[in-house]
Amino acid sequence: MIVVIRPDVSQEKIDHLIKWLSDKELIVREFHGEKQNVLGLIGNTKCIDMDMLKSLDIVESASDMNDTFKASNRKMHPADSIVNLESGTGPKIGGGNFALIAGPCSVESREQLTGIAKDVKVAGANFLRGGAFKPRTSPYDFQGMGSAGLEILLEAREATGLPIVTELMYLHNLDEFIEKKIDVIQIGARNTQNYDLLKELGRSTKAPILLKRGLAGTLKELLMSAEYIMANGNENVILCERGIRTYEQDYARNTLDLSAVPILKKLTHLPIIVDPSHATGRSDIVPSMALAAVAAGADGIIVEVHNDPKNALCDGAQSLTPKEFAKLSKKITKLHKALEE
Amino acid sequence: MIVVIRPDVSQEKIDHLIKWLSDKELIVREFHGEKQNVLGLIGNTKCIDMDMLKSLDIVESASDMNDTFKASNRKMHPADSIVNLESGTGPKIGGGNFALIAGPCSVESREQLTGIAKDVKVAGANFLRGGAFKPRTSPYDFQGMGSAGLEILLEAREATGLPIVTELMYLHNLDEFIEKKIDVIQIGARNTQNYDLLKELGRSTKAPILLKRGLAGTLKELLMSAEYIMANGNENVILCERGIRTYEQDYARNTLDLSAVPILKKLTHLPIIVDPSHATGRSDIVPSMALAAVAAGADGIIVEVHNDPKNALCDGAQSLTPKEFAKLSKKITKLHKALEE
Amino acid sequence: MIVVIRPDVSQEKIDHLIKWLSDKELIVREFHGEKQNVLGLIGNTKCIDMDMLKSLDIVESASDMNDTFKASNRKMHPADSIVNLESGTGPKIGGGNFALIAGPCSVESREQLTGIAKDVKVAGANFLRGGAFKPRTSPYDFQGMGSAGLEILLEAREATGLPIVTELMYLHNLDEFIEKKIDVIQIGARNTQNYDLLKELGRSTKAPILLKRGLAGTLKELLMSAEYIMANGNENVILCERGIRTYEQDYARNTLDLSAVPILKKLTHLPIIVDPSHATGRSDIVPSMALAAVAAGADGIIVEVHNDPKNALCDGAQSLTPKEFAKLSKKITKLHKALEE
Amino acid sequence: MIVVIRPDVSQEKIDHLIKWLSDKELIVREFHGEKQNVLGLIGNTKCIDMDMLKSLDIVESASDMNDTFKASNRKMHPADSIVNLESGTGPKIGGGNFALIAGPCSVESREQLTGIAKDVKVAGANFLRGGAFKPRTSPYDFQGMGSAGLEILLEAREATGLPIVTELMYLHNLDEFIEKKIDVIQIGARNTQNYDLLKELGRSTKAPILLKRGLAGTLKELLMSAEYIMANGNENVILCERGIRTYEQDYARNTLDLSAVPILKKLTHLPIIVDPSHATGRSDIVPSMALAAVAAGADGIIVEVHNDPKNALCDGAQSLTPKEFAKLSKKITKLHKALEE
Repeated sequence: MIVVIRPDVSQEKIDHLIKWLSDKELIVREFHGEKQNVLGLIGNTKCIDMDMLKSLDIVESASDMNDTFKASNRKMHPADSIVNLESGTGPKIGGGNFALIAGPCSVESREQLTGIAKDVKVAGANFLRGGAFKPRTSPYDFQGMGSAGLEILLEAREATGLPIVTELMYLHNLDEFIEKKIDVIQIGARNTQNYDLLKELGRSTKAPILLKRGLAGTLKELLMSAEYIMANGNENVILCERGIRTYEQDYARNTLDLSAVPILKKLTHLPIIVDPSHATGRSDIVPSMALAAVAAGADGIIVEVHNDPKNALCDGAQSLTPKEFAKLSKKITKLHKALEE
Repeated sequence: MIVVIRPDVSQEKIDHLIKWLSDKELIVREFHGEKQNVLGLIGNTKCIDMDMLKSLDIVESASDMNDTFKASNRKMHPADSIVNLESGTGPKIGGGNFALIAGPCSVESREQLTGIAKDVKVAGANFLRGGAFKPRTSPYDFQGMGSAGLEILLEAREATGLPIVTELMYLHNLDEFIEKKIDVIQIGARNTQNYDLLKELGRSTKAPILLKRGLAGTLKELLMSAEYIMANGNENVILCERGIRTYEQDYARNTLDLSAVPILKKLTHLPIIVDPSHATGRSDIVPSMALAAVAAGADGIIVEVHNDPKNALCDGAQSLTPKEFAKLSKKITKLHKALEE
Repeated sequence: MIVVIRPDVSQEKIDHLIKWLSDKELIVREFHGEKQNVLGLIGNTKCIDMDMLKSLDIVESASDMNDTFKASNRKMHPADSIVNLESGTGPKIGGGNFALIAGPCSVESREQLTGIAKDVKVAGANFLRGGAFKPRTSPYDFQGMGSAGLEILLEAREATGLPIVTELMYLHNLDEFIEKKIDVIQIGARNTQNYDLLKELGRSTKAPILLKRGLAGTLKELLMSAEYIMANGNENVILCERGIRTYEQDYARNTLDLSAVPILKKLTHLPIIVDPSHATGRSDIVPSMALAAVAAGADGIIVEVHNDPKNALCDGAQSLTPKEFAKLSKKITKLHKALEE
Repeated sequence: MIVVIRPDVSQEKIDHLIKWLSDKELIVREFHGEKQNVLGLIGNTKCIDMDMLKSLDIVESASDMNDTFKASNRKMHPADSIVNLESGTGPKIGGGNFALIAGPCSVESREQLTGIAKDVKVAGANFLRGGAFKPRTSPYDFQGMGSAGLEILLEAREATGLPIVTELMYLHNLDEFIEKKIDVIQIGARNTQNYDLLKELGRSTKAPILLKRGLAGTLKELLMSAEYIMANGNENVILCERGIRTYEQDYARNTLDLSAVPILKKLTHLPIIVDPSHATGRSDIVPSMALAAVAAGADGIIVEVHNDPKNALCDGAQSLTPKEFAKLSKKITKLHKALEE
C-alpha cells in the first residue's frame, strides 16, 4: 500500500502514523522527496481500513499496490536510488552517477590484474572488476583462483584506489567477502534465483549487491530477486542486464535486451547497469553496445578488459584491450555530455 | 577417453590396467556389459600415449571423447542405468522400470497427504511426491511447511510404503534430508545450476537425485549439472524434463519439450522422467501430455494430484483429482503393453 | 456471437431466424449436433439486441464470443470437424479418422516417387506427400522440380490410389493446383501469414488445406490464419504443428510443441496433425515423436520417407527408410488400439 | 568467390577477365574501392581453376566465400552501400546518410496525414511513413485505406517534398506502387520470407526496398531474403531491425535486438535501420530505444508519430506526438555530433 502524506506535515505526526502501522506488523518504508513524502507498507495490508486511513488529516491519498515487487517499486520511492559503498566514500551509482566498471573476466596473477587496473583507471574507470570464483558449466573447467584471487584484488584496490566488484558464488564464502570488505558483491546469472543466498545477502551485509538478470530471466523475476535481498535488510541493490537467451545464436552469445533499461527505470528506483561483454561474447561489437546502453539511459556498464585477450584463461574473445577501452571511455563521456545538454 | 576391452580378458588383467591408469591421476569408470567391457577415463587424458594403449593385448580400441559430459555419457556406459533407492529395496527407475510419481504440489496437512497417498497408491503410483520446501518467486508468498512437512511425508511413507520424492532447496537442509532418509531428493529448476548444492549432493549422499532441467536450460547444461553430482561421487541421477520457457505463453505455462526424451536417451545412460504438471500448468491437458511422454520413451512421470484442486495452497490448476489420476494410470499401463509387444 | 437453439425447434423457424440475421449483414454459421443446434454469428454483432434475441421462443441462450477466432472456434462447432477430399471419396481426416501421410521431402524422379509411394501404401499410409515447389532460404539452392514434379505426383496417385499432399508456395500456381486436382494443398511455415494466399485459398477452392504453424508462430496466429481461409469460403482446414523456434538448438532443428495438440483440440473443431520430421530434423527420433503425437491425440502425422536418405536432394537426415516407416506404422496401429479400449 | 585485383590494373584488363568469367555463366559483381578493386563471383564457381586464377598477373588474391549470402556480403563490397531514391535526387541512406523516417502507423485521412507530415518535416524528418495496406492478424480487423491511402500519401509528398515509405503487402499491388512512384517500398515482417514477392521486387523495380526482419527471423534469414531481391536485379535494399519474439513479453511487445546493428554492419554493406515503435509497442520508451539505435550505429530509424495517439485507428500506444518527436530529433542530432567528433 502507498500512502502519500500532505506536504507540510510535521515529522512527529508522521512518526505517530508509522508507529501505529508498525504495531499492526506492517513493514513501513519512508520516502522523503522534494515534493512528496510517501509511506510504503509491506505485509498483510488487508488489516488496514483504507477509508479510515484516507480520512486522516495528514494523509493526502492512499492506494493499493498490486505489483508483486514492493521494496524495489518506484511507487514507494519515486526518486532514483543512489547506491553508496559501505564506507560512504568513493564513487556512487545511480541518480546521475555513472559506474564505469572494467577489468578482466578472471583474476590470473598479481601482475596481470594490477597492470590492467592501472590502465583502466587512467582511462576513466571508477570500479575494477575481476573474477576470483568463476561459475563454470563444466565441473572439469578452471574454476577461478578462489581466495588467492581475492587477495590479488585487494592489492589492486590498494594500488589504484579503485573499489572492486567481484562475484560471490557460494554462501559459504560470504563471511570472507564481508571480512575482506569487498566493495560490490556480484551475483551471477545462475544464482539470480538462489533465494538462500539472496536472503543472506539481505541479512548479513549492507555492501552494494550487483544482481544480474537470469540466463533467461524475466524483468519481473529480476525485481523479485532484488526483493529477496531488500526484504531481508539490504537496500543497496544494483540491477544488471546481461543478455537473454533467445533463438538467435549465430552471431552473438545472447541477445542484449536494452529495452530492459528504460522499462526498469519506470518500474523501479534501483540503478540499472549493462554488461555488453557477456551479452555479446564479441569484443568487436562491445563498444557499439556499450554506447547504446549509455544512450538508453543505463547507470553504468561493466566491461571486460584484458591486456592479452588471446591468451586470457577465460572469455578472451569478449575482452577489450586497454587501448580499446580508453577509446570507448572517451566516447561515453562525449555521449553523456550530448545527452545532458 | 573410452577404452574398449577385448571380450575374454580376465578381470585381473583389467585391474592391472586400471591401476596403471589411476596412478596417472585419472578417474577410471568401469562398465561391464553383456557384449562389451568399457573403461571410461576422466581427467587429464593427454598424459596417456594412445598408440601405446591401443597396442596393448587386452585393448580392442581406444578413442577420445570430445563431449563435455563424461560420467553421464552413454559412451561410458552403453546400457541404461537403473537407479535404486539407497536401501536397495523398493521400486527402481530406468532400464524398463517405470516411475509413476504422484502427489500434491505442497504438503498441507497430515490428513491431506495421507489421503492422497493412499489414493495414488491404489491407482498404481509407486512413488509419493509432495513439497515441504517451496521455491517461490516472491519472498512474500507461502514458502511451504518446511521440516513439519517432511515429518508428514515420513508418516505417509510409513502408512503406504511408498518411497517419497521431495525438493531440497537449501544446502543447509541437506543433513536433515539425509537423516530422515528422504528416498529421492528433488532439485528444482531454479537450482539446476547451483553448483555448490550439486557438489554436496555428490559428496554427502548416495540417495537418488531427481534433477530438473533449468527454466530455460539446454540439454547440455542439464547433463553438465548431472556431471557436477556424479563427478563428486553420486551416480544416482534421474533427469527430468519439465517444460522450457519459450515465446508461446498464451495457453500453457511452459513448452513441454518431449523431444528431450529420445535425445537424452541417445546421449546418456541416466533415466529420464517428465513432469507434465509444471510444464503445462493445466490439469486438462496433463493426461494427454503424460501419455505422450510415455510414448516418447520416458522412464517415468511425476504428476500433481490433489483431492481438492480448487482449494490447493499452491498450483491447484495443474493438479489432477485422484479419480483422474487413476484413469490416467490405467491408460499408461495399456500404452506400455502396446509399445512392448 | 453464439446462439444456442432449443432442442425441438423446426428447421423452418431456424431458417427464419437465419434470414433475419443475414439481413443485418451478419455471417451465420449453422451447427447441427446430436444434442445442440448452434448458430454462430460473425460480423458486426453490435447491431443485434441481445436481450431481444434471448427472449425469442426458439432461443435457449445467446452469448458474446470474445475470442478473436470465430469460424474455427469450437464454440461455433462443438463436434470435431471431419475434413473430406473434394471428391467426397477416399480417406477423411479428423473426428476419429487418422491421416498417415508419408513420402519424400522432394519429388526427384518418377522411379523414386512411385517406388516410395508403393512402399508407404503397403505399410499403411493413406496419403502420399512430396514437394514439387520447395521453399528455400537461399535463392541459390535447388527449388524443386516445379510443374514436372506435380505431374509425377499425379502418376504416383494413379499408380497407388493414394491422394496426394503437396505444397503450394506461390499464388500464381494455384490455378494449376486446382486444375490438377491436388487432393490436399499444403501451406508451409513461411506462408502461414501470407494473407493474400490464404484469402485466395478460401475463395477459389474447397480442397482441404493443410496449414502449417509459422516458424515461430503462436497458436492464436495459426487459428487466425485458418480464419483467413474459412472467412473467405473454404472450411476444409487441417492445422499442422511442425516445431517452433526456441533457444534449444544443439540437438534438434526445432522444438516440437506437442502440447499444441490437446490445447488446439480445446480451442477449435479443426483436425490437428503433427510433422515430426521437420520439427526434429533427425530421423533417429522421428518414430518416438510420431508415437508421442499419436498419444497426445493428433489426428494424423506427416512423415518423410525416402528410399535412399543419404542421397536425398533435400532433408535426407530427417527421412525414414520405408522399412523404418513400416515399423512405425505398426506401432501406431497398436497405440491407437490401446488408447481406444 | 572473391577475387582481389592488383591496385594499378587497367579497366580494360579487368573487363577481359570479367568477360571470361561471365562466359562460364558466373554472375560477376564489380566493386571499385579507394584501396581495392574486388570481383565477386556468384554461381557454380567450381568450374573455375582457382590456382590458374591466382597465377594471373592482374590478380592479387582469390578465395572461396563460404557464406550463403553473396550479393549482400561485405566481402563483395567492402564499403558501405549508399541507397539512392530512383530519381537520384533527395535523401540518401547509408554510408553516413541518416534516414529519419516518421509518420503515422496508418493513413487515416488527408488532414491527418498532411498535418503530421508538415510537423515531422519541421522537426527534421527526411522521409514520411504511413501505411495504406495494413497486415492484420485477424481478417475481421481494419485492413487499411488501400489505394485511397496511397493517393493521400502522394498528396502529402507533394505538399512537403518528403519522399514516402509505405508497405507493399500483396504482389498484385506492385504495379500500382511502381506507377505511383512510391519512393521506398516497405516489406513487413510477415512477408520477409515471401519469396515470390521478393523475387518480383528484384525484377520489376529499382526503388529502394525497406526489408524488415521476420517476427522471429534470424539475421542469416534476413540477409538471405535480401539476397532474393538482389539476385533478381534490385540492389537497393535497406535492412530493418524491428524487434524479435522472445519469452519476455510482460512489458514490451517484442525484444529489440540492437546488437543486430553492429553485427549486420560486419556482415553486409547494406544500410541498417531500426524501428523502435513496433519493437516495443510503448511510446514512453521509444525515444530511449531510438537514441540507443543511433549510438549502436544505425543508418536510420523509422518512428511512428501521430497527432492524436489516443484516437489512432492502429497502434496509438506506440506513437509519439509531433512534440515528442521534435525533442527526439534534436537529441539525435546532438548524439550524431558527439559520436562523429
